Formats: sequence, structure tokens, C-alpha cells
Amino acid sequence: MTKVTTVGGGTGSFTVLSGIKNIQHVEISAIVSMADDGGSTGVLRDELGVLPPGDIRQCLVALSEHSDIVRSLMSYRFCDGSLMGHSFGNILLAALEKVSGSFVSGVEVASEILKIKGRVIPVTENVATLCIELNNGEILEGENKINHSDIENGTNLIKKIFYKEKVKINNHAKKALEEADYIIIGPGNFYCSVVPNLIVDGFSSTIKNSKAKIILPINLTNKKGHTLNWGVKKYVEEIEKFLDKKVDFVLVNKELPTKEQIEKYKLQEGDGVLVENDLDNHHIVIQGDFLSQKVIDNVTGDVIAKMRSIIRHDSQKLAGVIEDLIKS
Amino acid sequence: MTKVTTVGGGTGSFTVLSGIKNIQHVEISAIVSMADDGGSTGVLRDELGVLPPGDIRQCLVALSEHSDIVRSLMSYRFCDGSLMGHSFGNILLAALEKVSGSFVSGVEVASEILKIKGRVIPVTENVATLCIELNNGEILEGENKINHSDIENGTNLIKKIFYKEKVKINNHAKKALEEADYIIIGPGNFYCSVVPNLIVDGFSSTIKNSKAKIILPINLTNKKGHTLNWGVKKYVEEIEKFLDKKVDFVLVNKELPTKEQIEKYKLQEGDGVLVENDLDNHHIVIQGDFLSQKVIDNVTGDVIAKMRSIIRHDSQKLAGVIEDLIKS
Repeated sequence: MTKVTTVGGGTGSFTVLSGIKNIQHVEISAIVSMADDGGSTGVLRDELGVLPPGDIRQCLVALSEHSDIVRSLMSYRFCDGSLMGHSFGNILLAALEKVSGSFVSGVEVASEILKIKGRVIPVTENVATLCIELNNGEILEGENKINHSDIENGTNLIKKIFYKEKVKINNHAKKALEEADYIIIGPGNFYCSVVPNLIVDGFSSTIKNSKAKIILPINLTNKKGHTLNWGVKKYVEEIEKFLDKKVDFVLVNKELPTKEQIEKYKLQEGDGVLVENDLDNHHIVIQGDFLSQKVIDNVTGDVIAKMRSIIRHDSQKLAGVIEDLIKS
Repeated sequence: MTKVTTVGGGTGSFTVLSGIKNIQHVEISAIVSMADDGGSTGVLRDELGVLPPGDIRQCLVALSEHSDIVRSLMSYRFCDGSLMGHSFGNILLAALEKVSGSFVSGVEVASEILKIKGRVIPVTENVATLCIELNNGEILEGENKINHSDIENGTNLIKKIFYKEKVKINNHAKKALEEADYIIIGPGNFYCSVVPNLIVDGFSSTIKNSKAKIILPINLTNKKGHTLNWGVKKYVEEIEKFLDKKVDFVLVNKELPTKEQIEKYKLQEGDGVLVENDLDNHHIVIQGDFLSQKVIDNVTGDVIAKMRSIIRHDSQKLAGVIEDLIKS
């Protein structure tokens, strides 16, 4: 068995996990960010004091071997009454945290109920409020706020990204990093899904001592106000700064979206939205066609989510190149 | 395999099912009343237009072969925020009805998720508002209202119990009655859990043509304003009136509760609360010690539920006599 550990949260991890769960003889651990504080997740966090279930839910759905209807159930969002706006999966995880006594045990029971292939592991058991200090001294508090703010736009620049509280790596996550043969970091919302894992106390020191090869699938697009105009090189440099370690394999998409897709995207995100491959030859770059051609009709969520879904990774194509890598 | 079909709802069915699920070579179908309109169930029914999940939930929990924690999850009731008062299991069934398109399919998926032994079948797929017409012409509408009203107290008398809507037997329920070797009716809240099954269109005609032997475990106690001062004979007569068929085996508890238990009970329910065995010899009566000796510390719910739980059936003892019966 090859041990593969993914690091991320939300849609990016969903895509990777949906693909790699079909690779034979692979043992998957999915480490997931706990910084989410928006939407249904935020309400549950505020009202019930539970840890944020949203990203965990997506990873559970990706790895579930149940029928499609159970997977739809997990993502079902109530449209009426007192449950309005809540996704069923979030409610499940909130209830399980209460019943089992801890979020980590709750996720384990959810994994049993959902018959998941592999394990989904919250990066931390601590309450984790993501903060960013800008170069002008302003401090932005909360993942949701940061997600909707300009933090790197030429005028505003990030001075520091950190947690308000002491946030320690969960022991299961530590073990999954230590024992991994391969660690896949991202793709995903850079400052709101990927980095929130890397800055947890004990994360980078653990990965530094791990023998695992690190695979970095580069995002297809940049996020306005966060990573606009970034090329592959910048992504790699930033990740290596947070890890204090070199990345082994960089996966870069070379398939161009259609003009129509790009135009639609630019309307929302502005120029500089596509990630150019400007990497030097100090890294092993694996280029391939990773673009999804599927049209998504009914993306729920906000406008940005709808736009973002226009250009996205194809989980099978991505899994294909990862399979080649780990079996070579 | 011996096919056993239970008919009821709520706590009574929970007790029977928890016991008989441990009998070897038995195929269980649990037919459940759909008249519940109180509590969390009522809110979901009003707000989301879903069928009442409460009684179904209890039967699913009874038959689930998952760990205790999953069973606790299903009964977990949120105490704070916008989810307050809802039981998780009810939310699950409401979401599944929405996702799967019908309540019956939703219950099937829930059965898959909860790894239940046997099947849980809503007696009908129709919206079912239970009504009672009293001898004074007054009509009481809704199971919750009926449950908390005096409908048989010497002054008020039931003239008719019926549904406001046309309520037809669900085909799966019909089949479970037709194919059964044994049908167990009750125990449970007589007018609010047991009878609401029997008055569904097609129920009594189906049971009449079934070759199944009918087992009737008699309630241990009477309900004030509903069945006060009833003896075993009255229960049997009433059931036979609704079925238009003779009951084959009557199970009667002969173990006396402690004086303390009885006194506590009388405080709540008045005299005439214990069901006396006054049955003639036209029936096969099986007497046994069916009383639960377990002390329940933390019964949630209203005062009546707490009181009622003082004197109750022991599921293993009840299952023991049922096992002897069906294997003889």
C-alpha cells in the first residue's frame, strides 16, 4: 500500500480525493483546514460552539463509497423553515461532535456511517481563527472576512498570516504526515484553504522530518485581491517558504480553457487570472491536460463559486498523473 | 426464515423491535403510524412539508446494527441555536425525503445508512391528519391535540376516529402484512400510535386476508382520558373491532410493579391505571413477567413520558415469549 496524504480543504481537496480514491493499493489520509467560519458552518460554529464542519464534509463526500443519493444528502441544503441555509452534512458533523464528545471522534463516526475509503483528519482540534496583518497595520480576523477582502492587490500586502489562538497540529494529522509516502498540497483557495494548514503549530516541523515526496498541483486560476498575476513560480516559492522545504513534483496544467471560459472568468476576476508556467528548472514539473470539460449547471453558492467552477481541475485527469507518479 | 411484521409507532414499537431483532432466522418488517404531528416532527411537517419522521426514527434506531454512538446520534436533540428542539434523526429523514423525492425512498436510504436489520415501512405515503369525533359532536384534529385531550373519560366518549384526508395503505406495508407469518400489534399509545395504523384504508381488509397469526402484547398501563380502567378484555375487543378479525395470541404481563412505582404512576394518571387481566377463555393468553426492572435516569421529553417510563415492558423478556411462540 502506498500512503498518500492530502492537505487542503473545500473544493480543491474534493477534486483530488474524488480522483485518487479510485487508484488501487493506495491508503488515503485527508488533512483538512479548520479555519472556515462562513455560511452554514459559521452559524453552527457560533450557535453551537462546534468546530467548522464545511471542508470536512466535502472530503467525506469525496471519499464516501455509498450511493450517489447519500452523497447528495451530505451536500443537501435546507431551503425553508428553521433549518434554512444549513447543509445536512454540517448538521451531521455538529450533532456527532456533541454526541461523541469531540470533533475528531465525530469525524471518525461520520466516516463509519458514510463508508469512506481512507481517513479524513481535521488539521487541529483547537478553535482556529485565521488572521492576516496587512502592511498598513490593519488586522483582518476570520477566514470568511479574509476571503472577501483585498489582501494582496499592490496597495494592500500581507505582512503576516497567523491564528488568533494557539493552534496545534492534531496527533492523527501529525502521524499521517510522518507516515506518508506522498503528500499532496492543494490545489485550492491559497490563503483560505491551503495555507491555514501549513501555519498550524507543528505542521512544517513534521513535514520537514517526513520522508514523503511532496506533490504540488498548481491552481488553474488566480484569485482577485489574493493571488492575482501569480505564476507557477510564485506558488512554488510561497509554499516552500511556509514549509521551509523543497517541493518534489509540481503539477502544471497546459490545457487552455476556451476563450469564452476565460472571458467569463475575467469579467469576475480581472486580468492575470490564469496561472502562467514561469518555473525555472530547479523543480520537476509535470505538465498535462488537467482541465475539466464538464459543464456544471447547478452550482449552488455565491457568484464567485459559480464563476470559479467554470475553470477547474478534472479529478480523473489529475488522479491519472498522480497514479503515474506514485507507481513509477 | 419466519416473517414477523410489527404494527405501531413510537416507544412501544421501539421496545418490541429492540428485542425481536436478536431472534435468529426472523425477517422483520416494522409498519409505522404516520399520524404524529407534535414536537420536532410537527415543526418539520409544517415548515418543510415532509411526512412525520418521529416514530420512524425510533424504529430505525431499534433495528440499527451500528454502534451505540450512531444510535445516540439519531435521538440527539439540539439544545441551542436555530436547530434547537430538533432531533438529528428527524432532520436526517426530512433531508432524505427531499433528496430522494419521497418519504418511502428516504426511509429506505436511511435504512441503508443505519445498517438496519429488517425494514421500516411507513403505513402510508399520504399526509394523515388524525381526527376524533366525540359524542357531543366536537371534532378534535391532530394527533398531538388528541394525545393531550380527554376523549374517553365517562363524559366525553369517542364516536369516531378517522383521517381528515384519504389515507391509503402503502403497497410495501400491504405486502408486509400479506406475507407475514406473525403480526404483532402494539403495545403503545392506543389511540395515537396503534389505532392510527388500523384505520388506514386497506389495512383491515389486508390483514383479514392474511394467513398470519396475530399477536397482541397488551399495554401494561392505561392512559388517563383515553383508556382509563380498561382491562385486557377491552383492549382485545377494541382491536378485534378495528381489525374485524380475531386475535390469536394475547400476551399479558403478570409481574406486579412495586408499590412505589404504582403510587408514582397514580399521582400522574389516577386510579385504574393498571390493566387487569379479565379475559374470558375464548383466547389463547400467554402470561409472563414482562416488566422492565431497569431504572431510567434521564428520560427526555414531557412529564407524561417520564412517568410512563416508570412502568414499561422489558424488550428482552417480551422477545423471549415471542420467540417461544413463533418457534413452537
